[in-house]
Amino acid sequence: MNSADLGRRVGVPSTALFTDQYELTMVQAALKAGTADRRSVFEAFTRRLPEGRRYGVVAGTGRVLDAVENFHFEDEMLGFLRDQDVVDGPTLDYLADYRFSGDIWGYPEGEVYFPGSPVLRVEGSFAECVLLETVILSILNHDSAIAAAASRMSAAAGGRGLIEMGARRTHELSAVASSRAAYIGGFDTTSDLAAGFRYNIPTVGTSAHAFTLLHDSERDAFRAQVDSLGRGTTLLVDTYDVTEAVRTAVEIAGPELGAVRIDSGDLLLVAHRVRQQLDELGATETRIVVTSDLDEYAIASLAAAPVDAYGVGTQLVTGSGQPTCSMVYKLVARAASADPADELRPVAKKSMGSKSSKGGRKWAARRRDEEGVAEAEVIGTGPVPDELAGQQLLVELVKGGEVVAREPLDEARERHIAARAGLPMSAMQLSRGEPVLPTEYV
Amino acid sequence: MNSADLGRRVGVPSTALFTDQYELTMVQAALKAGTADRRSVFEAFTRRLPEGRRYGVVAGTGRVLDAVENFHFEDEMLGFLRDQDVVDGPTLDYLADYRFSGDIWGYPEGEVYFPGSPVLRVEGSFAECVLLETVILSILNHDSAIAAAASRMSAAAGGRGLIEMGARRTHELSAVASSRAAYIGGFDTTSDLAAGFRYNIPTVGTSAHAFTLLHDSERDAFRAQVDSLGRGTTLLVDTYDVTEAVRTAVEIAGPELGAVRIDSGDLLLVAHRVRQQLDELGATETRIVVTSDLDEYAIASLAAAPVDAYGVGTQLVTGSGQPTCSMVYKLVARAASADPADELRPVAKKSMGSKSSKGGRKWAARRRDEEGVAEAEVIGTGPVPDELAGQQLLVELVKGGEVVAREPLDEARERHIAARAGLPMSAMQLSRGEPVLPTEYV
Repeated sequence: MNSADLGRRVGVPSTALFTDQYELTMVQAALKAGTADRRSVFEAFTRRLPEGRRYGVVAGTGRVLDAVENFHFEDEMLGFLRDQDVVDGPTLDYLADYRFSGDIWGYPEGEVYFPGSPVLRVEGSFAECVLLETVILSILNHDSAIAAAASRMSAAAGGRGLIEMGARRTHELSAVASSRAAYIGGFDTTSDLAAGFRYNIPTVGTSAHAFTLLHDSERDAFRAQVDSLGRGTTLLVDTYDVTEAVRTAVEIAGPELGAVRIDSGDLLLVAHRVRQQLDELGATETRIVVTSDLDEYAIASLAAAPVDAYGVGTQLVTGSGQPTCSMVYKLVARAASADPADELRPVAKKSMGSKSSKGGRKWAARRRDEEGVAEAEVIGTGPVPDELAGQQLLVELVKGGEVVAREPLDEARERHIAARAGLPMSAMQLSRGEPVLPTEYV
Repeated sequence: MNSADLGRRVGVPSTALFTDQYELTMVQAALKAGTADRRSVFEAFTRRLPEGRRYGVVAGTGRVLDAVENFHFEDEMLGFLRDQDVVDGPTLDYLADYRFSGDIWGYPEGEVYFPGSPVLRVEGSFAECVLLETVILSILNHDSAIAAAASRMSAAAGGRGLIEMGARRTHELSAVASSRAAYIGGFDTTSDLAAGFRYNIPTVGTSAHAFTLLHDSERDAFRAQVDSLGRGTTLLVDTYDVTEAVRTAVEIAGPELGAVRIDSGDLLLVAHRVRQQLDELGATETRIVVTSDLDEYAIASLAAAPVDAYGVGTQLVTGSGQPTCSMVYKLVARAASADPADELRPVAKKSMGSKSSKGGRKWAARRRDEEGVAEAEVIGTGPVPDELAGQQLLVELVKGGEVVAREPLDEARERHIAARAGLPMSAMQLSRGEPVLPTEYV
């Protein structure tokens, strides 16, 4: 079972095979070499934000906690690994007993991050930490990409309603995680019932063209919908002629009509025309919902249009051009043994190109000016300077294998709004630019 | 349970909530209006290929069949829908009994498609068909996007090995579906153990930088790996200095060393240097595997390099710039009742912009020239011309609610290779262009 962020508990399968094969073979080789239990520190971080983006958004942390709890090798899985000769007998024995028993610290969900930010820090034996690499990265890379797009869209929407409706554009479970990430990034509702079920995200629905086409006339369709769902429903008005549809809609539902949805055409122009028509018909409270390949730029371009809510699909669930983050999970320090007294030594790859990384177990803090506006992401491996002690970003998530930091999803959402508000104003620009905070290593 | 394409059977949860709320509210309104049982035909198709792409690849069909079989509302789900007032009592009763009882025809998995191709045709009552919209589109849009990218990469690789290793860059279950789609598109193996478990796709693994950094020297790391995994293993040689690493690798494993992996730097240059060094050391059979943000263009640019296999991650699982297809699921025909004798009438949206679609229940065939090379995708709603009767593309997948077209995944993979080979040569060009076949409506 997973926590579902304190929503409904959902039976989930073990996450242990969401793992690249090399993690298991590395464990095998390390077990044989006697190095598998060396005390190790892994960190998840990104070397760069997607091009032009000003900040990243941490999302997926709650799902990572579920994944770590559910990471255990069931008999059938062990049988598969045996049958396929993936690993040897001693390794199968190790895996059969596997439960993560280490510590995890990380940026709390909804927090913003920058290049180098140690978004997650995993400590334990080499073997127990390395096995979690793929599933941790899958979750953080996916969910953070969606949350980052959602955050830009919610900044562009400036308080108007945002409906996540991208389920049909991505893998069915990726869709559920996307709803969750979008909610953290500032969306209000989702059309995805599984996201409502699993995470208590408010669900909403309108109507599809198929419903109009099923009936002998648009009038029949509207009447059927209003009869069953009430006057507060949202009628889709662009199956045939919008002006006629709006007239029919108000005729049937009266001025109490909840909303109309426009899904095609020049949304700016049509929204103005429809608003004027609705007002003339006395339906001054009827809301206008627009959908149709919206992204943050389209949302921003509709700022002056009489739109009450945006429904966003494709561009949200594909991260608005950036469907994944480039977070990596690297060994940054390790001891020569399992002995807690044995010193942790920083390690880092030193090879060609831009793939180098900084060794050492890191802390991170956000330095702020007198007004409380963030100035820099400060990252270090030594002692934390006194003036930054109160601004530290990592929080304890797992202690000795036990999850210690469950929270309702709304807390992550509120945290994100606050974190974004604490950034310099230029964070909200949609145009391409550098990360809005510099990363300083001390 | 799902079929797992005749691989291991995997317990999967019901797919019934992978559904947009409006599908349920439309069912409610149609039930009340007495139109829910009108005989209906829905089709999944795309109005356009991603910009510049020459062909699409159908993938996900096997998963769609699983999803349809597993689409049933469990008590807990019905309780959720009741608690949240999503639908009324009669609708809950309808959903409680829901099992798809209609027919599904479609392009077989691995087949190529073009704008307008009726990739899937779903027939039954309005209510039973409309409920499947979201989950069908989620699967087809995701899986076909990945398969299309995989197909371009496999064309570029020209017979060299292709390893799918993108799990860490996408949602953990999207990753499993991506491995499956990549295999259909021409990939040979995957690093994702869940994909091996679920779909019998051959799994492989190399080693990570963390393994080298865990040990006191690269030499210790290589020795540990070879001791445990044998000389046939793949050693990662770019943690420190490549030349030194290759020397150490052959010293430890001997010329029987299976492969070396290069994950950074100028792959073209480094591969040449490493090949020369390996040959000089007598390791003429040792293979070179390259990884590091490869896409179809990078693969093509390495055609002249002494590379034996490509490991592809990010760009594969994100569809190489096109992470989703734009397939839609539209009501194209319906009768005025449930009576099979009642005539099916074509229906279509007629609104603004490019979102119009063609009404009518469709067949599709691929016209070929005397050499058997495809010339056109022919789509019609009337009788099939005699000369095209043998070239029809849709096959029966579900009959009266029963899945009738299970097949092993290898069949879809072989079908794709054959289908692609039957296209005009220009299909294999990586450069942007028009769809390689015109769509003709007759």
